Amino acid sequence: MDPRMAAAKRAMDYIADGMVVGLGSGTTMYRFVDLLSHVRPRVLLVPTSVDIEQYAARRGLADLIRYPWQVDRIDVAVDGADEVRSDGRVLIKGGGAALVREKIVDYWSRRFVVIVDESKVVDRVPTNSPVPVEVVPYAWPVVAHEIESEMCGEASLRRGTGKLGPVVTDNGNYILDWRPCNEVDDNTERAIKGIPGVVDSGIFANYGGRITVVVGTGGGVYLIE
Amino acid sequence: MDPRMAAAKRAMDYIADGMVVGLGSGTTMYRFVDLLSHVRPRVLLVPTSVDIEQYAARRGLADLIRYPWQVDRIDVAVDGADEVRSDGRVLIKGGGAALVREKIVDYWSRRFVVIVDESKVVDRVPTNSPVPVEVVPYAWPVVAHEIESEMCGEASLRRGTGKLGPVVTDNGNYILDWRPCNEVDDNTERAIKGIPGVVDSGIFANYGGRITVVVGTGGGVYLIE
Repeated sequence: MDPRMAAAKRAMDYIADGMVVGLGSGTTMYRFVDLLSHVRPRVLLVPTSVDIEQYAARRGLADLIRYPWQVDRIDVAVDGADEVRSDGRVLIKGGGAALVREKIVDYWSRRFVVIVDESKVVDRVPTNSPVPVEVVPYAWPVVAHEIESEMCGEASLRRGTGKLGPVVTDNGNYILDWRPCNEVDDNTERAIKGIPGVVDSGIFANYGGRITVVVGTGGGVYLIE
Repeated sequence: MDPRMAAAKRAMDYIADGMVVGLGSGTTMYRFVDLLSHVRPRVLLVPTSVDIEQYAARRGLADLIRYPWQVDRIDVAVDGADEVRSDGRVLIKGGGAALVREKIVDYWSRRFVVIVDESKVVDRVPTNSPVPVEVVPYAWPVVAHEIESEMCGEASLRRGTGKLGPVVTDNGNYILDWRPCNEVDDNTERAIKGIPGVVDSGIFANYGGRITVVVGTGGGVYLIE
């Protein structure tokens, strides 16, 4: 079985009728939404990007979609990650620029289930991914300078295709992709968030006992808890 | 002399030819811009709101206006405040919803000059003002709940006139007005900023030796440094 589908299948064990479920973003999450559309549990879904919302709607789940102001809790958030430190304590997310809404939902949820294939599990983060930082457009040059001078590494404004100039997130902001000199952790997460103009970063650390990482491999899944 | 004009006049002492000057927002700042338009020093101006930018342009200063990506530093930021703790170490700002750009510019500046009339100086903050918190629209109910449950007090979505529903800031976000149970300080500033979905708060603390508060009174000015 495809390792990502194996992880998504195992994550379905955390879903029960009556739950409010946070829907992360990304290609691994498409598999999870595919499963939801087959099983049709009686849940409500809180999407973390326009992309995953539209994907869920196309799979026949539009009637289940809710926004944070329409629910009083999130029982479980299921989400992917770009990189997972092998002890499960630090994630890098935001390659798809959905990090701000993901962090809101993942932080708020009572249980946080991360689904990845084994290629995402690394000894130190970041290994290959940059660290995305969402910034207020007005502030991007100031924040880039502050990160480079105070924290080491290079921070570049993300550009994409489909429009000239910088990528604009679902929240109307820009993304700086930071390639740090060193490993990042919960202290880095706090330091970056403390910079005026930063909305949030793709460092997701310190979810403690709430987090379960489901790792899909060619031969099944294993858990990091 | 009007106490606010007295404070603005004294702030002109910090301005010299060749400087890049951060322009705060609010009615006291209108006085400072009035003075700039008379004196016309050879400076560049980085405005912190569409409002103060338009005010400066109407006063004949349009050619001096620059954005953060057009300058390599800010020598001095001049800004107002809603409340100033009497030791000058904690300010409350954001009644005009300009707090995010103000904090970017004030934090970045080499010297931070706050101009207020004496009614703004109080023994504890907040005394009368709420503490504004700018939030990503998606997150507002989650952040309001988090502030009320973890930090005590009431947080309400700011509404205004001119449009139905919530006030939208120059950055496209919402404002929560938080009335805390207790005093706030630099620890509160850090805790609020750490909540996912918060862009920044109106608590401006810990500017150390960089800050000078110029207090205008009916009989002149005094400084808090």
